[in-house]
Amino acid sequence: MTSRDGYCWTPEDGLKAGVPSLGVISPASNISSSEVLYDVIVIGAGYCGLTAARNAAIAGLKVLLLEGRDRIGGRSWSSNIGGYPFEMGGTWVHWGQANTWREVVRYQMEGEVEKSHDFTNGVKHFELNTLQGTTTMSHDEEDEVTESAFKKFTNIDGAYGRETIPLPYTTFRNPASIPLDSQSAQDRINEIANVLTAQERAILETSILLCSGGTLETTSFHEFMHWWAMCGYTYQGFLDLLITWKFRGGQSTFARKFFDEALATKRLSYTFNTPIKHIKDTGSSVAITTRTGQTFRALRVISTLPLNVLGAVSFDPPLPAGKQAAIAIGHVNQTIKVHAELSNKALRSWTGVTYPHNELYYAIGDGTTPAGNTHIVCFGGNNKHMDPEADISVTQNAVSSMFDPSNYGGKEVEIQRLVFHNWSKDEFAKGAWFFAPPKLLVNHLDDMRAQHGSIVFASSDWALGWRSFIDGAIEEGTRAALQVTKDIEALKAGRPSL
Amino acid sequence: MTSRDGYCWTPEDGLKAGVPSLGVISPASNISSSEVLYDVIVIGAGYCGLTAARNAAIAGLKVLLLEGRDRIGGRSWSSNIGGYPFEMGGTWVHWGQANTWREVVRYQMEGEVEKSHDFTNGVKHFELNTLQGTTTMSHDEEDEVTESAFKKFTNIDGAYGRETIPLPYTTFRNPASIPLDSQSAQDRINEIANVLTAQERAILETSILLCSGGTLETTSFHEFMHWWAMCGYTYQGFLDLLITWKFRGGQSTFARKFFDEALATKRLSYTFNTPIKHIKDTGSSVAITTRTGQTFRALRVISTLPLNVLGAVSFDPPLPAGKQAAIAIGHVNQTIKVHAELSNKALRSWTGVTYPHNELYYAIGDGTTPAGNTHIVCFGGNNKHMDPEADISVTQNAVSSMFDPSNYGGKEVEIQRLVFHNWSKDEFAKGAWFFAPPKLLVNHLDDMRAQHGSIVFASSDWALGWRSFIDGAIEEGTRAALQVTKDIEALKAGRPSL
Repeated sequence: MTSRDGYCWTPEDGLKAGVPSLGVISPASNISSSEVLYDVIVIGAGYCGLTAARNAAIAGLKVLLLEGRDRIGGRSWSSNIGGYPFEMGGTWVHWGQANTWREVVRYQMEGEVEKSHDFTNGVKHFELNTLQGTTTMSHDEEDEVTESAFKKFTNIDGAYGRETIPLPYTTFRNPASIPLDSQSAQDRINEIANVLTAQERAILETSILLCSGGTLETTSFHEFMHWWAMCGYTYQGFLDLLITWKFRGGQSTFARKFFDEALATKRLSYTFNTPIKHIKDTGSSVAITTRTGQTFRALRVISTLPLNVLGAVSFDPPLPAGKQAAIAIGHVNQTIKVHAELSNKALRSWTGVTYPHNELYYAIGDGTTPAGNTHIVCFGGNNKHMDPEADISVTQNAVSSMFDPSNYGGKEVEIQRLVFHNWSKDEFAKGAWFFAPPKLLVNHLDDMRAQHGSIVFASSDWALGWRSFIDGAIEEGTRAALQVTKDIEALKAGRPSL
Repeated sequence: MTSRDGYCWTPEDGLKAGVPSLGVISPASNISSSEVLYDVIVIGAGYCGLTAARNAAIAGLKVLLLEGRDRIGGRSWSSNIGGYPFEMGGTWVHWGQANTWREVVRYQMEGEVEKSHDFTNGVKHFELNTLQGTTTMSHDEEDEVTESAFKKFTNIDGAYGRETIPLPYTTFRNPASIPLDSQSAQDRINEIANVLTAQERAILETSILLCSGGTLETTSFHEFMHWWAMCGYTYQGFLDLLITWKFRGGQSTFARKFFDEALATKRLSYTFNTPIKHIKDTGSSVAITTRTGQTFRALRVISTLPLNVLGAVSFDPPLPAGKQAAIAIGHVNQTIKVHAELSNKALRSWTGVTYPHNELYYAIGDGTTPAGNTHIVCFGGNNKHMDPEADISVTQNAVSSMFDPSNYGGKEVEIQRLVFHNWSKDEFAKGAWFFAPPKLLVNHLDDMRAQHGSIVFASSDWALGWRSFIDGAIEEGTRAALQVTKDIEALKAGRPSL
């Protein structure tokens, strides 16, 4: 099945909108009537909504899942092109991610992961292109420089943050961690600028942007430290947990497990291609009106709308001031992720940074495609933002600029394919994974998490642990389903006529 | 409520059997008839059984939980003495443990953990007592020596095991890891003996025994490397994941969440004090006969009996040869865990090793009791085994021998209380957490995991990830409940008359 989402470019066919994905659901709906009163309507079929819908359906609730797109997965989905998966959004998983790995093992997928990088053959180098010039170094040297930079950046307490954020699921518990949320990444870099080498600084800045997708000024230092704490306060942990293991068959193979299990309960109704417009909570039930004017009703609603799109839906009664304030601020992540197939096989073991002058700042060899090409995955963000479909030559140039021809016998790389999704232009995402600007979390994390009448708000954007990650989405979907299941049980116990 | 399990000794009252625990369930049974045909009978109310029973009940199955003891928790439970929890078995948890932490967050207990150690005040030292004499050193020095020893022990591939066991949930996937399971810890120590200092060797041997509770000869090197891989291949990870964070209210507060949630579904029947004797699988249903001759029937059974007690139950048809072989071998962990209240407050920041001549080889300051005493937790095992209740003066002496009076102004420690459970004499455990002898896993892991007719065998003893841990129990309970739920659904779909 082909999704409307995503783009693919090849020399032969040029740029085409829409890519195949195992996450596209057919038929797109299994409901015939909108007259049903559901126990719960789940808005959004990303991992958070899938988890919430699945858990609620298992627990016996009558569930309706509404999704604006034609596919499951939300900000995590894979495009299957010729049997080869390109990860359009969230990619990497690890057994240290509690909610994700619990599901991986539950679905017996623990053997279905593989490493992104493979440094065994080929160029086996890291290429650093900055305004000061170009350098290549071994991956061991890359690690050494990066680790040194990370240690300087994170060592706020003589213990690399361990004393300040001892429990990464409750980061604000230690008062010493609170001021970190008033600092931007830029503020922190300014504090340590005189002990960073130029190489360390370029790699550090790129690494931070690779996390936040914003700018150094709009990146909360606290949130970066939260990620760092989640990764065990080490650079090796950062690599292991954030950018190493991916599903051999692609994210959508994992997401399908949730959807298929929910469907097997026979208590899941669903309809895709159904963006919603308005949510009215009467107290006794909630009515959801779609853009096309259909109305669905339920006793409870679980909204998994991301922070950046929550403002596009109207609520009656209106959302409380704290939630509205958080929506008005929004998160800052405008990551651009571009996959490229390159004909040079030796680049399989390549990694690179081109910063700050390029639209794409970081890339790694991520696989070998069925055609035998090297697949690299490239990242850019808000520091030099582009819409990769707007002018494909700009995107091609941004990919090519990751490689200085002088390192490759004067040859430019040959791009055989580009695959990407424009998250910034995606009306159901308006950005990539959540990343907090300074002060958003300390002021509004509780607001974002708060229930509003009969509506539970669940999203990786305000998870406690792996916030922004697939894991955080599952964490939140689990929380929401449990809450709603308890509510509905209490409701039905009190009103046996229902 | 007071459990039959456990012992407490004080100078005033002497040795008493039975200690209070929040894990004791009252009333001990909620069933009146044994004529019911259950969907599933879960044998054992440890974390594995609790998870299986809870998940099956949530999924709509009619569940009977049978437990030989008077309490939940199995090999993990806390005694609440004067409001202060002593952990009688499994203690420490961490957000890197997928199944455990998923539940911690689901039950909103992420803020209810605290550190065992507190090195801020008091002696702030590590005491090493060996046959060669006694030494004290700072905790930084302790870490340095221990890390150095661990690195030598684990560095089988130039990458501290990372290359050999890249995916710790599927340890045997890399053929290079298989020979490690033919090696004992002693074999591996022999290989590196000439590069270990005497201090490193004493601490290393103690650390290994602290994991296995066996002897160095009966400890599989592969299984130790599995633990090491689960901890991120670092000593810091070992500390963080294995021995740092515990529940402020004790393990039984966590276990209660599972039981109470299962009970709230109104689909959980249970009866404690009900050891079972015989399991007969007729194909269409399974009949379980208790020691007192009661019979219970179900479509499916989930046995969570640990490996070392599985042989005490008879099966008809008999268990297959592979499972019987695994049972005949058994696991080797005979850990002795003794809590002691000491009047010296300064010992809060103490850690110690007394090895190999003492029944207790390792201990750490674990808390301050309501009486203001320092609580230390001490560990011994099979290298010099004792039954701590057999002669309390031997146990007292083993605790006192953790401290060389010459380090404390010539004074012996004053013991105000001892609390322990004898896991080796416990008929429902016959040992502590699972630890594999050489060759058990490579030959029989699949056998231990295999279903037998309508009986699913689930236990932390053969979990894939945190085998031996609470996490592994939840992993296995999750697997079993999902399997049985699918089976029962298929059965009922095929036989609508049921």
